[in-house]
Order: sequence, then C-alpha cells, then structure tokens
Amino acid sequence: MQTRYYTITDYPKGTPERDLFQLREEELSELGEGEVRIRNSWLSVDPYMRGRMSGVKTYIDPFELNEPLQGAAVGEVIESRDSRFKSGDKVRHMGGWRDIAQLSGDQVEPLPSIEVPEQAYLGVLGMPGMTAWTGLNIIAEMKEGDNVLVSAASGAVGSLAVQLAKAKGGTVVGIAGSQEKLDWLEARGVKAVSYKGKDAEQLTKALKEACPDGFDVYYENVGGDCLVAALNNLNVGARIAVCGMISSYNDTEAAPGPSNISMILIRRARMQGFIVFDHWQNYSRFLEEVGPQVAKGDIDYEETVEEGLEQTPDAFLKLFSGGNKGKMLVRL
Amino acid sequence: MQTRYYTITDYPKGTPERDLFQLREEELSELGEGEVRIRNSWLSVDPYMRGRMSGVKTYIDPFELNEPLQGAAVGEVIESRDSRFKSGDKVRHMGGWRDIAQLSGDQVEPLPSIEVPEQAYLGVLGMPGMTAWTGLNIIAEMKEGDNVLVSAASGAVGSLAVQLAKAKGGTVVGIAGSQEKLDWLEARGVKAVSYKGKDAEQLTKALKEACPDGFDVYYENVGGDCLVAALNNLNVGARIAVCGMISSYNDTEAAPGPSNISMILIRRARMQGFIVFDHWQNYSRFLEEVGPQVAKGDIDYEETVEEGLEQTPDAFLKLFSGGNKGKMLVRL
Repeated sequence: MQTRYYTITDYPKGTPERDLFQLREEELSELGEGEVRIRNSWLSVDPYMRGRMSGVKTYIDPFELNEPLQGAAVGEVIESRDSRFKSGDKVRHMGGWRDIAQLSGDQVEPLPSIEVPEQAYLGVLGMPGMTAWTGLNIIAEMKEGDNVLVSAASGAVGSLAVQLAKAKGGTVVGIAGSQEKLDWLEARGVKAVSYKGKDAEQLTKALKEACPDGFDVYYENVGGDCLVAALNNLNVGARIAVCGMISSYNDTEAAPGPSNISMILIRRARMQGFIVFDHWQNYSRFLEEVGPQVAKGDIDYEETVEEGLEQTPDAFLKLFSGGNKGKMLVRL
Repeated sequence: MQTRYYTITDYPKGTPERDLFQLREEELSELGEGEVRIRNSWLSVDPYMRGRMSGVKTYIDPFELNEPLQGAAVGEVIESRDSRFKSGDKVRHMGGWRDIAQLSGDQVEPLPSIEVPEQAYLGVLGMPGMTAWTGLNIIAEMKEGDNVLVSAASGAVGSLAVQLAKAKGGTVVGIAGSQEKLDWLEARGVKAVSYKGKDAEQLTKALKEACPDGFDVYYENVGGDCLVAALNNLNVGARIAVCGMISSYNDTEAAPGPSNISMILIRRARMQGFIVFDHWQNYSRFLEEVGPQVAKGDIDYEETVEEGLEQTPDAFLKLFSGGNKGKMLVRL
C-alpha cells in the first residue's frame, strides 16, 4: 500500500516558501507486530510546527529533513496488529501531513466517546482547546470575575480561551484583525479590539478604553506590540500565560523586546511560558469540563477547512497571515 | 526640639541632581498621645526610593514635595507617650532621612533580640535581607541544588541572595562590576562575572562559561543586558524573581526591551515581579532562619557607611553608580 506524505527539504529562514514542502509517495512496509495502519480523514496544521522547522531543539525535536512531517490527525484504522485496535476504530495520533499513517499502537489513541464531529478532537477538544484551558486555569490561575485579555482571539486557541474566560464572568477583551473576526468576538459577548493600523501606544489606549479597570489575566499568543500594550494595562498581581508569540516565529532577526518589561515589577505580575504537552495529565479533566459544553452547542467553535492533502502546506502558511478563523484543518 | 530632615523640591527626570535634595530644620510639635520621639542612629538608602521620586504611584505612594523624605531607620526612643515604648528602647521605623523622628507608636517596632549590630536590621536582617530571602524562596521557589544567577550580586540584596543560594548547593553565579566586588564574590564560592565592557551577547557567553548547565533560578536586580543574557541561559522550567531593574530607574526614555523575551516560552520559564512588603507576614520565619546564621558569622554582610545626615543624598546617589558594596548606610 502507498502512503503520500509531505516533507521539507531545508530549514527555512523567515517565512517558509511554498516550494519548501514536497509531496512524496512511498510503499509502506508490511505491518509489523504491534503496528496499526490508519487512513487519515483530518489533518491539523498549527503555528507551533514552525518551531519544529528551525533545525534546533526548542521544546520538541525539530522535524527531520526529507522525512514525513508530523502533526495531529484523526483517522480510521484500516489494519491492525495491536490487539487494542481493530479496523473501523476512530483514532487520533501524530502521524499527520500524510494520507495513510503506519504507527506503533502505543502512539495511537481511540477518540473519546463524546458526540461531536470527529475533527473537533483536533481543535476545540484537542490540543488547541486543551491549550486554551490549561493556559487560563493552570498557568494563569484565572478566578471568577477576572478581567481577561486574549490576543489572536479568534484563532484555534484564542477563540476557546475567550469563551472559557467569558463563562467565568469579568470583562473579556479579544485582539484580532479582520472585521469578520471582530464581529464573531462581539457576538460572543467579547469586547473586540483590532490591532490593524495601531502601534503599541494606540493599542495600549484601545485596550484601556475596552477595559478601563485593567486586566487580571493576559492570554498571550502573539507577542510584539500586543505584549507591550497588555503590559501597560495589567492590574497588580496579574498573570500572563504565554502560549505563543506568533508575531516573531518567522523573524530572521531579533525584534526589539517590550520596552516596558519593568511593568512586571511595577504590577508585581507573573509571566509564564508553557507547552501543553507538559500538562497532558489534565486532559481527562479538561474533557469532562469542556466536552459536554461543546456537545450541547454552548461553545461555538469555528473551523477553516482546506480540502485535500495537496492543500496542507497552504493551510499551514495561512496561519501566519491571519488566513484562518478558528481551527485550521485539512480534510482528506 | 529641632528636627533636621531632607526633602526634594521637584520630581527629577533622569538621574537626580544633588541640588534636588534640601536639608531643612523645623521645631517639632509637642509629643501627642500615642506618639514616640526617636533619635535616629542609622539611616537606610535604597534603590526603590527612586521610584518614590517619580510623582506617580507605582507600588507605593510617591514622596511629597517639600515634606520629609521617608525610609527605614534605626534609633533610640528619647521620649514616649505610647505605653509600648520607653526611653532607651532600640527601634526600627520608616522615619528616615532625618535626625529626630516623631511618629505614632503604631509605625514603630522594637528591634528583634538577636545579638547583631543594630544597623544589621536595616540590611541583612532588614528589608534588603528579607527581599533576598523572599525572592529566592517564595517567588523563585528555589530547590536544593538549583543553579542560581544573581545580578547586582554584591549589593545589599544580591550579596545575601548569593549566600543563601550557595547554602542550598548548586552553582551560584553573580554579576558585578569592580574587581573588589568580583573578589568578594569568589571568596564566598560564587562564580563572579563582570558586566563591564560586555554587550548582551558577550555577557551571554560569559554566563554560559561560568555555568554551562544553565540556570534554574535568576534573581533579577538590574534588567537591560543582564536580563537578555540571563534569558539566553535559562533551563527548562526556570524561575525569574524580579526584585528590581535598577538599570532603567533613571531612564528618561524607554530603553529597548529584551529581544529574546520568547525564551520565556521556549524554556517554559516563569518571571515574576514582587515587592517585599506584600510578603512581610513571613518576616519572623526569615528572621528565625537567617538571624542565627548572621549572629554566628556564617553570613558575611558588607556595609558601605557614610557619616552624618548631610551625606544622605550622596549615599543615595552612589547606589546608581555602583558606589556601594553591600548595604549602603548613613551613620548619624
């Protein structure tokens, strides 16, 4: 049986070029003892993957050149030599960026049984959702009534972060770009602030107008001017959960850092970077809490869907130009 | 009875000029019910006082123009209308920058009974010592064996921080300037790194040589290049206790921030600003732990002493040019 997969041929400097991604085809080896073969139905592309294209170890190993890229995927078992799986089982695993994945059964997990569309386990009930929940609850220790600011607030992570924050009361402000994204936020009861056409000082002012009482929690996905403006609007004892800094992922030179970093001292604030994989032991707690809300429709999750394996690189690249609302997915 | 005190006549921009400080003389009012009159013997000058000269509320109220400045002081009660105090009692209070203080008894505390020179209660067993202990133990949650980096490592706070850290094992590195300070650190078993003549990149390299395994804790007193170099040398899960950022206190324009702030994310690190007054409930715990070590001579605390009330402004200004080793004090 053939598998088609994407690889990269070099580590990009700056924004990756489309050419970097090559589609390859390969005959799969015979299924070994303990292995499972899966036909992928949905692939996830996520900003953190840019970090794996740097050739250096950050918090996870870099992608290997000319080897299949990796990422979360959902699919159906088509052959199994692991007694825990049988043909027809719906599963989730990290063998994405390809149509047919062949993996050790230890690297595969059955989809949970909550009644939601299967791709939700790549988004709102998958890694991005778990990331939003972990950042707010474990890292920022959000309390009832806290005022919360979220950057990239209509993204896969941000769009759940604003809704989880909103459910705990307090003023929730989201930073986003396009009018459509701002409208979506406003419709959820979130005060929407556009970063477009604003420097750090203007963004500072816009945030102050949106929430004159200041923020107790900042959920950081962006960095750059968003961080500067957020630091200027922190309350004493504020907590910043640093989930991402997408504004700098494609930088070839270091951009100047926040000139007001001393606000951390002045506001006695805490800023903490995290990676959700360190907190995966809480996944069942997250699923118990958020899963039923998603199933009931209380949480609105957006998806941007590209069709076909060939679109995977484009889907990935759109993440850096604001081309997605909610979770970016590829349907096979 | 007369009191002589220092005041400021304007809020300085940049480094305060010596002229800003005016010595005034005033007849004290008769001692009111509940008040205590104290002859000060030692005055403390501390970097945080610069923040009170800005005219804006940061974490404490600004100094009022033309009113007596405030700061920690030790002295002897010479008259009391508070039943808790009698003439001859040694006390500590915030009525510094003057020779005779007259305060409500509620603002005065007896000196603890550990046998140390009285001025130690302004330094190693006072606010600076408590600050070092709080930053390491409460904010950075230092564990046995952690590698610890301290900036301004020979200052009033830093010099205790390195010794407390050293006592818990692990490699301790201190950043300082002059050869004399570096020698003092080396004699305490601390690896000393000079910041002089080094940019952020060179300082990064020097820290890496001093501690190739990276730092689990960074005790931050300085900011600027020290912060950049420290961020470059953090271990995964590192904690930064931000006690001060003296490099920027006299800035008139915002200096560029750390361009590598994303290391907070990459190293999943935590950076937290604090002010010791929020943690004063732990003072007796600190005193119990550190007091006996100071009394036995296990902790070496340095003092830089200026003589006479008239020297108070100069003593204060020297804090910003590296003119002190250990605690800067004025003896009256």
